[in-house]
Amino acid sequence: MGELFGGIEAGGTKVVCAVGSGPDDLRAQARFPTTTPEETLGRALDFLRSQAETLGPLAAVGVASFGPLDLDRRSATFGCITSTPKPGWADTDLVGPLQRGLGVPIALDTDVNAAALGEWRWGAGQGLDTLVYLTIGTGIGGGGIVGGQVMHGLLHPEMGHIRVPHDRALDPFEGSCPFHGDCLEGLASGPAIEQRWGVRGESLADDHPAWELVAHYLALGVGNLICTLSPRRVILAGGVMERRQLFPLIRAQVVSQLNGYVQARQILEGIDAYIVPPGLGPNSGILGALALARRTETHRSRREH
Amino acid sequence: MGELFGGIEAGGTKVVCAVGSGPDDLRAQARFPTTTPEETLGRALDFLRSQAETLGPLAAVGVASFGPLDLDRRSATFGCITSTPKPGWADTDLVGPLQRGLGVPIALDTDVNAAALGEWRWGAGQGLDTLVYLTIGTGIGGGGIVGGQVMHGLLHPEMGHIRVPHDRALDPFEGSCPFHGDCLEGLASGPAIEQRWGVRGESLADDHPAWELVAHYLALGVGNLICTLSPRRVILAGGVMERRQLFPLIRAQVVSQLNGYVQARQILEGIDAYIVPPGLGPNSGILGALALARRTETHRSRREH
Repeated sequence: MGELFGGIEAGGTKVVCAVGSGPDDLRAQARFPTTTPEETLGRALDFLRSQAETLGPLAAVGVASFGPLDLDRRSATFGCITSTPKPGWADTDLVGPLQRGLGVPIALDTDVNAAALGEWRWGAGQGLDTLVYLTIGTGIGGGGIVGGQVMHGLLHPEMGHIRVPHDRALDPFEGSCPFHGDCLEGLASGPAIEQRWGVRGESLADDHPAWELVAHYLALGVGNLICTLSPRRVILAGGVMERRQLFPLIRAQVVSQLNGYVQARQILEGIDAYIVPPGLGPNSGILGALALARRTETHRSRREH
Repeated sequence: MGELFGGIEAGGTKVVCAVGSGPDDLRAQARFPTTTPEETLGRALDFLRSQAETLGPLAAVGVASFGPLDLDRRSATFGCITSTPKPGWADTDLVGPLQRGLGVPIALDTDVNAAALGEWRWGAGQGLDTLVYLTIGTGIGGGGIVGGQVMHGLLHPEMGHIRVPHDRALDPFEGSCPFHGDCLEGLASGPAIEQRWGVRGESLADDHPAWELVAHYLALGVGNLICTLSPRRVILAGGVMERRQLFPLIRAQVVSQLNGYVQARQILEGIDAYIVPPGLGPNSGILGALALARRTETHRSRREH
């Protein structure tokens, strides 16, 4: 029996907790709605503590959270959610209460960076030193691996907020992003679809022109990520991408928009294996949280031995 | 006396060669036009060989070249310029002839990745684990450091070819990029300026409306790079950026376009130190080539000891 880890995937509407060591060893899981920070973190703590009593001690816990997050270990607010518009959650310390409550190392990253790590370790990105994970749902968020490392910098990526061409003659919708109007998220997220067509995307038929337009914007976004990062694979996830007819539309438009400029056979001849759904399905995030925890443990062991 | 290194900066119109170990130790330099691959590589080889005879043996040579390049060591065409439209240069092997002619390790990267490395080692990016270097001239090219490593992936970044919003009512110019029309390079490079206004940018007055429009597009591009990579600094170089009035225009537009979404004081309060010209001036590329060479030597030594 190997070591046990805890994972917390904290989303804007629900939280998933798990104990295990990977996709083939998920011992326990729990789901509950995201309410106040105190109640939500309390439930996560209770679950992990009780599982540790039953299953054995946890070596570390990974947290994959909605953001924006302060991930700078030198910062006074390290481990906190910072300026989220989500009521009650701005300036919430995630790492502190968990570390005090569990007494084990806590690893924190954005939900999308964690999902990218999970896909890299066990899913559609195995063995690739550079990949992008983009989720298209209530918002659009992106994370990735570059040079074998999870992407960080000044803060963390906010790929959903890149600007893309928007022809207002063809698509007069102003965009749904409260910060930028017609950034990628403002044009192609779930709320953008709902605001533009007056019904939720789930209600639109597979042959509704919405999907061609959404694919057009997502392809512009993916093309920009390809030109910027040169990923070895692009993983598209999230509620909107559940409409699987988007994949062939996006792939065709990415190839057409790049117009042969990026001379890689993976794009020119193998686009079906280049732009793909997540290998871990809906579990990229929670498994990514376990992958974060495992990595912390590895680092700790390396330092100690 | 430390070790000596050679550097070659191969541009589309001219080549710069140097021997030394860094910005304070440049022992010899040469410049000549880029003609045929045979003649051009021959002159570079002659220069480095003769300098090695006079100054002492070179430990390694770094090559910072225009691209696109094959940088995959497992590829049969590793070390080659691939699909360039530059006449005579498609499928040119750079590494092979230099390695055979000099008998030392040859490090190759794109001109912009090398410049990013040079700026990281000795210039405006010292101590930063994540930075972007964008050059705006005959084309627009970008490179960078992410997690302390030069950016590579499927190929290398082609940041000049990202798409940005283009309001054809305000700016009916179709764009100058032969591949994409109005990508960033197509809207804001030197040729785009010349084609749109009928004269070279050098002839346009500082208060010509051209600069506000060029700054607008460059700010959209820089904003996209910030949202994607979260760099700790953005270095803007190249002939177009010699017009220093662009810097305050771009900085103001980046702040305004991001609209407070990226909550980092470096952007909100310190933009003048965040978007900057290269610290090494016009020498980022050739010093980057030396930095590439030094890194190769370091790696080789580490393996050997």
